[in-house]
Amino acid sequence: MAGGTIKTMSGFKPRLDDINFTLNHVADLEQISKLNGYQHADPATVSVILEEAARFVTEVMAPLNRVGDEQGSVLDENGNVKTPAGFKEAYDKYVESGWSASHMPAEWGGGGLPHTVGVAIDEMYKSANLAFALCPMLTHGAVIALVTHGSDYLQQTYLEKLVSGEWTGTMNLTEPEAGSDVGALRTKAVKQDDGTYRISGTKIFITWGDHDLTDNILHLVLARTPNAPEGTRGISMFLVPKFIVDENGEPGTRNDYSIVSIEHKLGIRASPTCVISFGESGDGAVGYLVGEEMAGMRNMFTMMNAARIGVGMEGLSISERAYQQALAFARDRLQGRPIGAGSEDSVAIVEHPDVRRMLLTMKAYTEAARCLLYITAQEADFSLYADSEERKQVADNRLAVLTPIVKAWCTEVGVEMASLGIQVHGGMGYVEETGAAQNLRDARIAPIYEGTNGIQAMDLVLRKLPLDNGEVIARFITEMAQVLDEMNEHDDLSAFRDELTNALQGLADTSTWLGERLAAGEIDEALAGATPYLRQFGTVVAGWLMARSAIAAKGRPAELDDDFVAGKVVTARFYGEHLLPQANGLIPTIKAGNKLLADAQL
Amino acid sequence: MAGGTIKTMSGFKPRLDDINFTLNHVADLEQISKLNGYQHADPATVSVILEEAARFVTEVMAPLNRVGDEQGSVLDENGNVKTPAGFKEAYDKYVESGWSASHMPAEWGGGGLPHTVGVAIDEMYKSANLAFALCPMLTHGAVIALVTHGSDYLQQTYLEKLVSGEWTGTMNLTEPEAGSDVGALRTKAVKQDDGTYRISGTKIFITWGDHDLTDNILHLVLARTPNAPEGTRGISMFLVPKFIVDENGEPGTRNDYSIVSIEHKLGIRASPTCVISFGESGDGAVGYLVGEEMAGMRNMFTMMNAARIGVGMEGLSISERAYQQALAFARDRLQGRPIGAGSEDSVAIVEHPDVRRMLLTMKAYTEAARCLLYITAQEADFSLYADSEERKQVADNRLAVLTPIVKAWCTEVGVEMASLGIQVHGGMGYVEETGAAQNLRDARIAPIYEGTNGIQAMDLVLRKLPLDNGEVIARFITEMAQVLDEMNEHDDLSAFRDELTNALQGLADTSTWLGERLAAGEIDEALAGATPYLRQFGTVVAGWLMARSAIAAKGRPAELDDDFVAGKVVTARFYGEHLLPQANGLIPTIKAGNKLLADAQL
Repeated sequence: MAGGTIKTMSGFKPRLDDINFTLNHVADLEQISKLNGYQHADPATVSVILEEAARFVTEVMAPLNRVGDEQGSVLDENGNVKTPAGFKEAYDKYVESGWSASHMPAEWGGGGLPHTVGVAIDEMYKSANLAFALCPMLTHGAVIALVTHGSDYLQQTYLEKLVSGEWTGTMNLTEPEAGSDVGALRTKAVKQDDGTYRISGTKIFITWGDHDLTDNILHLVLARTPNAPEGTRGISMFLVPKFIVDENGEPGTRNDYSIVSIEHKLGIRASPTCVISFGESGDGAVGYLVGEEMAGMRNMFTMMNAARIGVGMEGLSISERAYQQALAFARDRLQGRPIGAGSEDSVAIVEHPDVRRMLLTMKAYTEAARCLLYITAQEADFSLYADSEERKQVADNRLAVLTPIVKAWCTEVGVEMASLGIQVHGGMGYVEETGAAQNLRDARIAPIYEGTNGIQAMDLVLRKLPLDNGEVIARFITEMAQVLDEMNEHDDLSAFRDELTNALQGLADTSTWLGERLAAGEIDEALAGATPYLRQFGTVVAGWLMARSAIAAKGRPAELDDDFVAGKVVTARFYGEHLLPQANGLIPTIKAGNKLLADAQL
Repeated sequence: MAGGTIKTMSGFKPRLDDINFTLNHVADLEQISKLNGYQHADPATVSVILEEAARFVTEVMAPLNRVGDEQGSVLDENGNVKTPAGFKEAYDKYVESGWSASHMPAEWGGGGLPHTVGVAIDEMYKSANLAFALCPMLTHGAVIALVTHGSDYLQQTYLEKLVSGEWTGTMNLTEPEAGSDVGALRTKAVKQDDGTYRISGTKIFITWGDHDLTDNILHLVLARTPNAPEGTRGISMFLVPKFIVDENGEPGTRNDYSIVSIEHKLGIRASPTCVISFGESGDGAVGYLVGEEMAGMRNMFTMMNAARIGVGMEGLSISERAYQQALAFARDRLQGRPIGAGSEDSVAIVEHPDVRRMLLTMKAYTEAARCLLYITAQEADFSLYADSEERKQVADNRLAVLTPIVKAWCTEVGVEMASLGIQVHGGMGYVEETGAAQNLRDARIAPIYEGTNGIQAMDLVLRKLPLDNGEVIARFITEMAQVLDEMNEHDDLSAFRDELTNALQGLADTSTWLGERLAAGEIDEALAGATPYLRQFGTVVAGWLMARSAIAAKGRPAELDDDFVAGKVVTARFYGEHLLPQANGLIPTIKAGNKLLADAQL
């Protein structure tokens, strides 16, 4: 404790004004609430729900963020994971108050809120306590998998408990020698006469793979049946419960697997990351096939696309948290005087231009990432419920393009903003008690898991750029360019407009260049530029969304006060005039190709 | 431990080939060794010394890096700091083998090596074990302060023991309410009849403020005498020994201060960061005036400029370490197949274009930072020993410009490269056992201390840009442009040459624009762009140095093998064609001014 001056910051509060603004004026909640199935989610109702969610995360989840990091989850001598003090009580409240079910499918007892609203709630969870919020995120993934691919038996037996949060879910993909290359996995599944399977093998990096929050845990495990083909084609998905459910639907016999260890991680320390060994003491753990044999990868991608958006959210959530924390510190901390000021009195550091630059950078990236997340979730809703097949197709394509961008761009930005948050704190930021350091440690996982950001960039270039012969992305750029006409009507947006014009041209240029490489079969030439291309793409899309934000705010919706409007326009312009121009600085590296990379003496 | 596959990396080895190349062909060690006072440091002798240093850090310092992080230094119940297992033995070896003295002044028993060689040794120390190496760095600062400002008594009593490393030194600037604003400090110093002073007050963030490595510790403390003027003008510097030295020169009475606590930090955990309370139990701790009363800030800057270069070094050192670690992992880790390859066999991830991009980015920034550090140290040598006043003046100016750039640019790059090192490791990078995470945690302090990077940017714009009415920087840009003619003779450098031409024009443009703002008294307009201007400046200087590196390598000095030459040219070109172009992407934000920052609703 540095001389008694450190203030810890448990006082995180969701920024409901910007959340509501983004939902209603960048995304279009009104329109979403008119879709079949979402009629109960009108903007007024949603606004009340969000206020309640904000109260819940502020009172229940946020106060446990620091203690969760300090204590971490630990593996006890009996091989059970014990979560930090207060987590069990908080989780119970989370289940009892119905938050687990809020954006789960209505037919299984959920609140059936649109994805667009779900991400807003998820943002609050993850800002308040990322390690805690990962548990529900994994459960949500398991629900999606079972709703989409589960047999009647599996759905009837497990879905209601997962939706309510009484039980939790996990994803078991990675093995010691199979990380990004899932197809290399070796865990075995052998069919029994009763139709169940016996699973044996070791899985690593299992998030919330064990804990003491609920009385059962359901693992979705990728494994290979005997004689299955090599690679991803030979993979099947199984549900492996911690306790095998008896005929009354209650947890019974302990299944045959053990928690070998939990990782000592850089961050998200309250979230236990487990090594699980299946079938150590017998023929294998009892598993139930999910979907068809050999369809495991397809099933997993059903969960994965949602999970990638959920991981992108981690970047936004930590940025928001880091921004609030840095701002509170900068307002409080007296240090120095403005250059040229007559007075000898110290001022709060929030008055210094360089500190304002850091804070406004954090605010701008955070608000831009929020736009990106919410419109992506909106496309997921259109993809499910739009009233025409044509609109659904547009949404599917848009979602396909945005998913890797959301995952990689938002998480990279999240790490950078968390690091900037430390910098605003100066020396106090390096001391763990302030919590700024924890933000960086927590944020650093997000560019890695659910497909590294390098994998996302490959996905964007190899799978998404070729959609419709490049026309999906070309149309997207054309659509983005339409905002330029609207910007023309606002003199104060002219510098932003010029930068956005250049940036869109730059994106069209690199998209065309990369498309040509693919068409010529020069795959490595294209892959060499994939990561900076994704960064450029995300930076430009965020620029388009910040332009739309500025215009929407200038339209002065009735519920917004003058300060919010003025602030939004300044933040959007800062993004456009200060940050967006960096996108075109990436063009040379995107188009430089693979030659030097191939020749490098590493 | 993730499934038994994690390899820890204690096998750090200094990259002597690149260190020697940079010393001899980017810096000019031959010329330095002809300066009066440095004749013993001819390139052949230095090469042998560096080999020995490399062996020492590999065998003694590097193996303690991980254990130092795990155990950290702790404060025991008696108020004494205990260092991690092995640190005391390693430090003893460091003193006994004479490494402490190697680049200390010869007249006090040191080896008197040039700064240019000193930074090369310092790089190895800090790559091997940053937390350990901070202790000698602080001692070195104390030596500089006493050599420059100490009385005969202080020099005779303390210098030999500091030079040998038998005793260590610290810097005591910061107080709870006086961080970057040193002038606000309140620690008091009252003169006694015997000429000594009594010091009372609290200092925070004292690096290696206490430990069990030596039998005395010498604190250089900034304090305010009674009736001294407010602000930095009223500050004096005092030497406060842990044990007051008796007439035989031996440690005697314990001085009146206590270690209140040590910080729980994000990284460099083996380096104890102390809160020290002076004069708790009596009239104050005994202190000896260093230099004149009221000259404390000037004295401190004598140490500070060297210390800023030393902190810039931390960025380089961690980058090198992170690169080696990531490369070893990428060579070892089998995962995936090249796109389009016929074979089903997994390849090492070092074969994938995106992984090669990350590694080559790390290598290029590391080598560029090495050039920057070494030529800056060379200017320090010229500043002291050049054979004409004119050359000394040039060196002084060049050193003044480069110091904030080295401090801020290299440390920002260091954090980014450490983060990239984690990314290369994938999930394994997030697990502490691999050590990649420690690199990021250790690196993150460097942009903060010895003047935050924001302070460095202000220094560059407010103090360095105006030197000689802007001519110092203008001449530097002109000198850098001379390399363009040399590049003309190499066809393979033409793309790099185009980028460097643009980048130098960009730097001239922003330098002029900022100079005009200062001339017009628009200080905040200039300060708003200071941080991106420093980033641009560092990126361009590094580009110039990488161009010189390529040309020097192409000249095929006899000692270099073909692989090294080819590798250096590729790395330099990658810097020039992929990384350097990002500099001009910063121009709009540098020239956008303060308007939006001032208007921001934070």
